[in-house]
Amino acid sequence: MKLKVKDLDIATGGILVAAINAEDARKFDLYHEDRILIKRGKYETTAIVDIAESKKAVPPGCIGMFEEVLDKLHAKHNDVVDIDLEEKPEGIAYIRKKLKGKQLSKKELDAIVKEIVEDDLSSVELTYFISACFMKGMTVKETVNFAKAIVKHGGQLKLKKKQIFDKHCTGGVPGNRTSMVLVPIIAAAGFVMPKTSSRSITSPAGTADTMEVLAPVSLSIEKMKKVVQKTNGCIAWGGAVNLAAADDKLIRIRHPLALDPEGMLLASILAKKAAVNATHVLIDIPVGKDTKIKNLKQARHLEKKFSTIGKKMGMKIHVIITDGTEPIGKGIGPALEARGILRLLKRDPERPMDLEKKVVKMAAKLLHIAGVKNAKQKVLNILESGLAYRKMKEIIKAQGGNPNIDPEKIPLGKYTYTFRAKKSGKIYDIDNVTIAKVARVAGAPKDKGAGIYLHKHETFKVKKGEPIFTIYSENKKKLKFALDMLGRIGGIHIK
Amino acid sequence: MKLKVKDLDIATGGILVAAINAEDARKFDLYHEDRILIKRGKYETTAIVDIAESKKAVPPGCIGMFEEVLDKLHAKHNDVVDIDLEEKPEGIAYIRKKLKGKQLSKKELDAIVKEIVEDDLSSVELTYFISACFMKGMTVKETVNFAKAIVKHGGQLKLKKKQIFDKHCTGGVPGNRTSMVLVPIIAAAGFVMPKTSSRSITSPAGTADTMEVLAPVSLSIEKMKKVVQKTNGCIAWGGAVNLAAADDKLIRIRHPLALDPEGMLLASILAKKAAVNATHVLIDIPVGKDTKIKNLKQARHLEKKFSTIGKKMGMKIHVIITDGTEPIGKGIGPALEARGILRLLKRDPERPMDLEKKVVKMAAKLLHIAGVKNAKQKVLNILESGLAYRKMKEIIKAQGGNPNIDPEKIPLGKYTYTFRAKKSGKIYDIDNVTIAKVARVAGAPKDKGAGIYLHKHETFKVKKGEPIFTIYSENKKKLKFALDMLGRIGGIHIK
Repeated sequence: MKLKVKDLDIATGGILVAAINAEDARKFDLYHEDRILIKRGKYETTAIVDIAESKKAVPPGCIGMFEEVLDKLHAKHNDVVDIDLEEKPEGIAYIRKKLKGKQLSKKELDAIVKEIVEDDLSSVELTYFISACFMKGMTVKETVNFAKAIVKHGGQLKLKKKQIFDKHCTGGVPGNRTSMVLVPIIAAAGFVMPKTSSRSITSPAGTADTMEVLAPVSLSIEKMKKVVQKTNGCIAWGGAVNLAAADDKLIRIRHPLALDPEGMLLASILAKKAAVNATHVLIDIPVGKDTKIKNLKQARHLEKKFSTIGKKMGMKIHVIITDGTEPIGKGIGPALEARGILRLLKRDPERPMDLEKKVVKMAAKLLHIAGVKNAKQKVLNILESGLAYRKMKEIIKAQGGNPNIDPEKIPLGKYTYTFRAKKSGKIYDIDNVTIAKVARVAGAPKDKGAGIYLHKHETFKVKKGEPIFTIYSENKKKLKFALDMLGRIGGIHIK
Repeated sequence: MKLKVKDLDIATGGILVAAINAEDARKFDLYHEDRILIKRGKYETTAIVDIAESKKAVPPGCIGMFEEVLDKLHAKHNDVVDIDLEEKPEGIAYIRKKLKGKQLSKKELDAIVKEIVEDDLSSVELTYFISACFMKGMTVKETVNFAKAIVKHGGQLKLKKKQIFDKHCTGGVPGNRTSMVLVPIIAAAGFVMPKTSSRSITSPAGTADTMEVLAPVSLSIEKMKKVVQKTNGCIAWGGAVNLAAADDKLIRIRHPLALDPEGMLLASILAKKAAVNATHVLIDIPVGKDTKIKNLKQARHLEKKFSTIGKKMGMKIHVIITDGTEPIGKGIGPALEARGILRLLKRDPERPMDLEKKVVKMAAKLLHIAGVKNAKQKVLNILESGLAYRKMKEIIKAQGGNPNIDPEKIPLGKYTYTFRAKKSGKIYDIDNVTIAKVARVAGAPKDKGAGIYLHKHETFKVKKGEPIFTIYSENKKKLKFALDMLGRIGGIHIK
């Protein structure tokens, strides 16, 4: 049947959708989310049917096209196209199968992932898939096959190296920027570590946000490869390299209900490691009441899963379970964290010692795995000799940043408020969630200079009137909001 | 923060959605499906956030509005609005709870249904709800509370009658138009039966499609009330009266994966009966390999559920399990079925005897429940005396149709093909699915005159060359498609 194109002048963000009027839908026996084949001369495409109830939006006899469909057909407003009913993507049958509690095969999961990446599945169909994985769980076999499919249908970084190191942290600890110290140490030791990191979602900064203070992080796969070939390492934003395309599309659907099906989460993490051909992966699982992993039992369970699945994907996984009860480092927020990291690498006396201690342990573990003897001493030497700092400067330069940046000149928010001890005593509770919220309200991570500087950590003794922390903001109003929030929820307690 | 309105010139079909550019989303810390409060002068509304990746669709600094949002705000292109982050609807927390396998309370289900009806929940959120109900099931208590919430938040027909009759069929049998005979019989007997029926989804005709051949079926609740007050009965399209608003919105999401969570299905059926204040409901469960209910065990299970849930909703449920192995009546398709029904009521010798037999049994059951003695004889008298026919004419007139329509003059498709017996023998398999498919391809239910007329039923003896069935179509090409399909899949077998 023939229909006249209406340019809807809006994009869906990927999925191919065409809308027809409810009257035509009834006539042609078409339903919401059916698939149609649209032809215009030599061009054709499949699209998902949306039914418009209003004649204003899409009048009968017309087909409303979103940008993606117009592009595929090289079509414009008022063109005439021919449409036919098309079969639904095969993945839908497998999603139904999973909904009914059956296990999916490698071939079936591969088909679903392929269709996700190619934007063949609608939001509703993806939601059914996530629901099914959440409620029915994924077996180890399914998780492995799902992760392999994500790697197959995503970008890959191909380096000709026998050993490639990577690292992941399950998250929830403000200031925990280990990657930015770990990468230069490992790279300086002569090993390869092509690190991709995320931006913050609910925290005051992700590694990508903090690294961005020092250098661009939105690298293409080609650029990332060049940086690693030159320096042995990189600290790039994972979102730009598109190493796990399917994953990004699934996260969009998982976010509204904050659903993290375990199998999907594991597959997503390990697929990103497999996509850079990592051979050794260090997983940091911080445990604390405010981190993602709340107790040792959960951490041990996850450790086992990571190891099993990693092994089946050809990676060696090394898990460390760490203390996640309080923030790490002194600065929270991109600029404050970047300052701390450069101070650490420069061996400044003001450097964050807790972060250093943790990184040294992690780096030693990785070097030990790589067969290096006296790994801890080696790591300390690399730090003390300035080799790590030099390597970081190389990486910053290769990514396109200024290697000679002075940490003390990294701009901070000019509106500040320092919270001082109202009495002498011992600090006994620095709450991750409060610190993160206040830093975000103050403007982090969007305002790079916003955040919180912790003068003192937990169990430290303070005297009445001594500074405990300072809030930085680039905006007077945001500072006020942050102080209001702090007043409402409390934060650091002194006994 | 302030944004400039971009009129997207398209409707979502109900849900309030506003799109902002990905850049702004990052700046304002907004995510896909977050809720925002939009203010324009004295007008304000909550909307679901959609993130536009393309600057062409929604440039930074702009907010793309779908029709529904523009209407609420009385806003137009280039107006400036103020937006603020808003809390998500409370139903989302309950959907998460259900996803985790917990039971929902009356208050929680009520909140979800209210938000569904008010278009507060997105497709993705609704999909999570349906998935959870499908995979975790609904208890009897949940089903009852869900049904009650649907009634509460939908239209209701309030008649001041002690006894109100209704009927439901689980479906899957072509030609099974019992309601159109049952309603005039019950109404003629002096009882009230305000019947709402569906249009066809996958069958060649729904009762609403067939009744529409004789009279308008898209009645408002007020009109339906008037028809029933005048005639004791009506045969209206359920979609127009909006008795179960939440249900219609859920069906849209259930359709793409053809998911029918049992609890949701039961709640949906009984909510529609409760919405007309039915006191007695007859449920017809046809059992056959091609019907929805495949075997006696399933039918018995459903019978029990219907009775238990109906009782808790204050209705008496009477279930009959019937033979669903072959089509009922001779005509399949709106016009052919309407002809058969009028012939039956007019006592024409050509009337469909199998349909009559089934309806007499059902009507007798209903009258018996109403306390009528010798119910079967009474039903036969009502039919034979022409009382039922007169009542049907009253109903047709009250709904706005022509009461004097001659069944033989109801137009049929002018393109026909008669399939004749290739050998003498006994017909042993008339396949419901094939008959339904062929009738649909021939044009039913959209083309009222399209369909199939069965000259002979199963177990009848035919001689070589005798007509078995005739296909009617309003369109030459569609007749050809129907014949092609019949050739491919077979249909009626003779032994």
